[in-house]
Amino acid sequence: MQRRQLSDNITQYTIGKPLDTGAIILRSDQSADDCDRIPHFSADSDDDNNLRLSKALTDDEAIYGLGEMLGGLNKRGRKYRCYNNDDPNHTPEKQNLYGSHPFMIFDADETFGLFIDYPGEIVIDAGFDRRDTCTIELTKDVHNEVNTNIYIIEGKNKSEIIHNFLTLVGSPFMPPKWAFGYQQSRWSYPTADAVRDICRKFREYDIPCDAVYLDLDYMDDYKVFTTSHERFGDFAAFAKELLADGFHLVPIIDPGVKVEDGYAVYEEGKANNYFCKEYDYEDKKSSGDDFIAAVWPGRTAMPDFMNAQVRQWWADLYKQFCEIGVNSFWNDMNEPALFFTKRGLEDLYTTYDEVRSRTNPGLDFFDLKDKATGLSNNREDYKRFCHDCDGQTVCHDDVHNLYGFNMVRASADGLKRHSHGNRYFLLSRSSYIGSHRYGAVWTGDNQSWWEHIIVHIKMIQSMNMCGFFFVGPDIPGFGCDADAELLVRWLQVGIFTPFLRNHAALFTRSQEPWAFDDEITGIARNAIRFRYAMMPYIYSEYHNCVKFAKPFITPLSFAFSDHRCKSIEDQFMFGHSVMAAPVHSQNARGRSVTLPDCKWLAWRATDYTSREMEVFAPGTYFFDCRLDQFLLFIKEDSLFVMTSPGQNTQTRTDELTVIGLVTHSAEFTCYDDDGTTYQYEHGKYCTLRMKVTAEGSDYSVTCKYNAHDGYKNRIKRINFEIYNGKGELVRKSIKMSGDTPEAPVRR
Amino acid sequence: MQRRQLSDNITQYTIGKPLDTGAIILRSDQSADDCDRIPHFSADSDDDNNLRLSKALTDDEAIYGLGEMLGGLNKRGRKYRCYNNDDPNHTPEKQNLYGSHPFMIFDADETFGLFIDYPGEIVIDAGFDRRDTCTIELTKDVHNEVNTNIYIIEGKNKSEIIHNFLTLVGSPFMPPKWAFGYQQSRWSYPTADAVRDICRKFREYDIPCDAVYLDLDYMDDYKVFTTSHERFGDFAAFAKELLADGFHLVPIIDPGVKVEDGYAVYEEGKANNYFCKEYDYEDKKSSGDDFIAAVWPGRTAMPDFMNAQVRQWWADLYKQFCEIGVNSFWNDMNEPALFFTKRGLEDLYTTYDEVRSRTNPGLDFFDLKDKATGLSNNREDYKRFCHDCDGQTVCHDDVHNLYGFNMVRASADGLKRHSHGNRYFLLSRSSYIGSHRYGAVWTGDNQSWWEHIIVHIKMIQSMNMCGFFFVGPDIPGFGCDADAELLVRWLQVGIFTPFLRNHAALFTRSQEPWAFDDEITGIARNAIRFRYAMMPYIYSEYHNCVKFAKPFITPLSFAFSDHRCKSIEDQFMFGHSVMAAPVHSQNARGRSVTLPDCKWLAWRATDYTSREMEVFAPGTYFFDCRLDQFLLFIKEDSLFVMTSPGQNTQTRTDELTVIGLVTHSAEFTCYDDDGTTYQYEHGKYCTLRMKVTAEGSDYSVTCKYNAHDGYKNRIKRINFEIYNGKGELVRKSIKMSGDTPEAPVRR
Repeated sequence: MQRRQLSDNITQYTIGKPLDTGAIILRSDQSADDCDRIPHFSADSDDDNNLRLSKALTDDEAIYGLGEMLGGLNKRGRKYRCYNNDDPNHTPEKQNLYGSHPFMIFDADETFGLFIDYPGEIVIDAGFDRRDTCTIELTKDVHNEVNTNIYIIEGKNKSEIIHNFLTLVGSPFMPPKWAFGYQQSRWSYPTADAVRDICRKFREYDIPCDAVYLDLDYMDDYKVFTTSHERFGDFAAFAKELLADGFHLVPIIDPGVKVEDGYAVYEEGKANNYFCKEYDYEDKKSSGDDFIAAVWPGRTAMPDFMNAQVRQWWADLYKQFCEIGVNSFWNDMNEPALFFTKRGLEDLYTTYDEVRSRTNPGLDFFDLKDKATGLSNNREDYKRFCHDCDGQTVCHDDVHNLYGFNMVRASADGLKRHSHGNRYFLLSRSSYIGSHRYGAVWTGDNQSWWEHIIVHIKMIQSMNMCGFFFVGPDIPGFGCDADAELLVRWLQVGIFTPFLRNHAALFTRSQEPWAFDDEITGIARNAIRFRYAMMPYIYSEYHNCVKFAKPFITPLSFAFSDHRCKSIEDQFMFGHSVMAAPVHSQNARGRSVTLPDCKWLAWRATDYTSREMEVFAPGTYFFDCRLDQFLLFIKEDSLFVMTSPGQNTQTRTDELTVIGLVTHSAEFTCYDDDGTTYQYEHGKYCTLRMKVTAEGSDYSVTCKYNAHDGYKNRIKRINFEIYNGKGELVRKSIKMSGDTPEAPVRR
Repeated sequence: MQRRQLSDNITQYTIGKPLDTGAIILRSDQSADDCDRIPHFSADSDDDNNLRLSKALTDDEAIYGLGEMLGGLNKRGRKYRCYNNDDPNHTPEKQNLYGSHPFMIFDADETFGLFIDYPGEIVIDAGFDRRDTCTIELTKDVHNEVNTNIYIIEGKNKSEIIHNFLTLVGSPFMPPKWAFGYQQSRWSYPTADAVRDICRKFREYDIPCDAVYLDLDYMDDYKVFTTSHERFGDFAAFAKELLADGFHLVPIIDPGVKVEDGYAVYEEGKANNYFCKEYDYEDKKSSGDDFIAAVWPGRTAMPDFMNAQVRQWWADLYKQFCEIGVNSFWNDMNEPALFFTKRGLEDLYTTYDEVRSRTNPGLDFFDLKDKATGLSNNREDYKRFCHDCDGQTVCHDDVHNLYGFNMVRASADGLKRHSHGNRYFLLSRSSYIGSHRYGAVWTGDNQSWWEHIIVHIKMIQSMNMCGFFFVGPDIPGFGCDADAELLVRWLQVGIFTPFLRNHAALFTRSQEPWAFDDEITGIARNAIRFRYAMMPYIYSEYHNCVKFAKPFITPLSFAFSDHRCKSIEDQFMFGHSVMAAPVHSQNARGRSVTLPDCKWLAWRATDYTSREMEVFAPGTYFFDCRLDQFLLFIKEDSLFVMTSPGQNTQTRTDELTVIGLVTHSAEFTCYDDDGTTYQYEHGKYCTLRMKVTAEGSDYSVTCKYNAHDGYKNRIKRINFEIYNGKGELVRKSIKMSGDTPEAPVRR
């Protein structure tokens, strides 16, 4: 084993000759030295030659991280598996979902981070088998070896460890501003007219929206990079029309390429050997034949994204879309999901024939059932194909967790290259540490279950720790039928998650904001408008989080010292000023909320103009909360900035409202840029720094506007609604004369 | 439609000529009159001739009841289906489980109860399709008719409505006292020695226990009413040995009878036409052949429990067990669960052949998968057999929900008849309103999911409303592997549910109290001992609940006026003095608790001798709660009675401890009887009535012992630990001179 110090806080331990996964961006020219152990862990090999790391756990030790996993925020007491998996049935015992994020924080007297940069299977027992022991097992590769980089990340507390980890793997990509808006999807809006109808309804119901998604059916026969002329006519004209109307189209792109003679993408891929090849796991050899699986299009070839040339090819396939103004996409099915392979099916038929040949089949019928249900996303199939990793033949199973990542990497490269300097938007189902630099992820095929609200509240906190700031669940659940109240309550959480999309599965009930009744439509409208009203706060905070490599969504236990926070996983910080505490139980008309460490300004909101606010001391309270209300809490001595919502994120207003509870002083810096290009990287942005200082029961305000590179201030008035230490509201207002603030006046 | 007034509060509406389901016990000689509507509802037939009842729902109207259903305590906003179903995967969208309990309370300005005594399918939309409407649809029978009795139950509040409903359908059966003890099960302890080992471990670890269960493997080849000589040797001797050691054996009995020549039960059933017959749904005729399905024993015949003669036969089959002292059983698989039928399997093969014949199977593979998974408990199979309802041929599908009920009825009759005056214990998976009079139920094949703790907390509250007081879930979950903490937290709830059983599925991790580590064993021991320490309270309260037809487990919103109680479904009343507020989240070390209406004595308990107690005013608080702690709250002006636990419920102590917070006065009547016979029905029991009256910061105590029929008081000392209005503890003690209490003395 070799050790290399990458920075003051990060040490790399290298076992064998690991493949470069692309996860890390921090390089060091420090030379490596030999070492025989990884701090905190004992390492050995189990009987199968898998590498096993073990660590004793103290009684109160918490374990955080692991990104897209089920279970609590504190991962202690369960087993997890890093092996990307298309499993739409997120029942609590499931060990793996679509992404693998093997970064963890061990939080005890000694607190540190661990990142295992291993693209094969990792099984983490976080105190399940034995409460006092964490074991992490890296499954050996086809050559009976485990080659990996392991990183120990130090820091003076959990937040700093995450920050240091993000210097290792990079901050997330910066989406265009519209991506912070509300996005509407379903499987499927199958025709251009269906999409137009959806767009028209948003205007009709006066509900802001920035994007509409195109699921599978926009394609011609599920062939990627085609569009159905029958259902969408002139797709370029259609896309242009939508964009002109203020809606971004987000089409789906799956990895699988339909095997069909004459289909250009397939022909190109086949001719250039761009597809994954069949592999014999025993012989460790490829036959050289393309690996074919059944996915949506039927017989399908899988692009070999592990190969740089293939990624280059794939990237350029997006060009045709970018040229017509469509540079926002979602990559689905990229674990990759495989319905079945020929060999899998043959295996099933054998079992069938066996059972059928018996005159009196009994319990063996269960074998048959298990075989049928186990045919999809079968581990054996993942051992049956391989990659050409730039010259080296690598069994897919050994790098399984990188497939979606590299599809995303290829897609992002193409979208960036062909977007003429505009920011792209990219969403992926599968991911690995590092893919956050290229795109966003959603939490996959969840269900319209009330239980899934809280599951995803926890998950997005964990994903933020792993660099996936721009993340959210399908609201109000993908599978199953939603009820009206679920839409409302989930939306009222969703406005506090960075990625806000409503999406539903085929055959499920409609769940657009107007799909239920007028009252529900009104409540949904108010929630979504509130989201848009928060845009100055969200965009500023998010920009800073990306810039300074700090998560946007933070657990209470990371931000506050109150010991009770360790037991509260259904409240979270949304940026640095606001805590969300959503009602997530059906028929509940209130909930208990714990306000840690300081005073809080509680806001029981119905819409962005409502002002049911009250100051609370630290403590636990039961807050009533009708269906049309939601709770947010502004932290003492911090500021929250709002504006008036429009029909989408393009609406620009000239007035800001600043809300806070200030007992000493509070600052906030509004950030803005063009929202669409990368010019902000070159200094083209503006900031508006506001400071409120308490002065007895009154306060003073200073504002400083800083424009760069020709920005002109749009803001004409800033309204301050500040509560003082006595809980009294004092309103003030500042007029801006161009870039210069005038003296504040009481309103 | 005909109307008949059954009592002041209960009106019966009869449509057509309904079959007597056996659900109700209240008869009236009042004559019926014609009527054209059921109050509160509009009735019509849908296109399929199903009967549909509709009711407008007001905004804040809550709907309670429905017994064994998923979802919240307030059933509003979901769909439910009364059609008994063996589905082990209790995911939130499931509409039906093992039992059907079509009793509901509509709670708005006007509050009333509704019982639909219909044994076929009922689909209840409690405001799911439209938030403002509840529809209840009764599926027509094979003759295209709906014949049913419907009851409207009045009362001045929810509790009184339940009480009145219970006068209609009867109070639950009274189990022997040992059934309130801890019970240990798993699928399976497969040999006599394995059972002996389990029993020995309870003694070794000093953990109280009253019963050990025998799952499938005690039988000879899954043949009901046989025992495996190979694995259990002389079963009579074995049962006697266990009983002598203080453990009750609870063997499983399924309904299905293995088709095997020479097997007495099968031969008798066949010879006497005791089995269900094949049925042609189209022709509405039976072929007269026995209906054969595949269940555990392979080819299986289903006893026709709808027939009185068959029930009589089945009842007597228990005699052989009763004669060797075994009169406690569980009836499983009695929905009835069917793995498949020959016709179902043929149907699957047809689909297979079709898919296989295609050269390029694609998405049609999903048909094949769905077919395989849908083979078990298939609705079509339930239409393929029929009953001889004492002369009348009835399609099984039309009376599906009565099958488990009538199996239980037969079993209970047999057990009562052959138990020589002793109380029997009977547990069933399937149930219908009315079967609570014959036995207990458990909540079926749940999972070791943290989410299932709260699901079952809600479910047992709803089941108590329907008469099923003696109910509980498999702790800590049947399917999946449990973690140590789940065992602890679920046990800490389980001690506050009437039926307390630890049970696990085949192939899952061991989860007996000692299966994890020493600390966990200690915590589990303390929790279980606490349960045994509560036995005087539990047995007294439970007896009164049965006697006076009032649920043992009650929702907060039924017991208190505080409006917040409507939003709190994870706290509940356990008897009349104690509120449980369990920690049900993994890794949580505390929780928020709302204390409604009055002051409460909060007890953060580690074991029954611990005394971390404090008085709280009404409000919401966060209570810290370590893993070894659990929270209970004793209501102001009520009393809680404890004793010292022994190795099982047979332990008799001579000292009681009475705990309370008394600001005015509080009473409690301890009830006791022999715990094993029905002599209490004939007056053979004793009561000890205690009254504590506040007198300034002190209090006075009166005790009155009432023995009947030769009972002698066992109690020699009663220790009072009473907190006064100032939160000060004042200890007093009373010595009993025989049946006469001496003056209390301060300790």
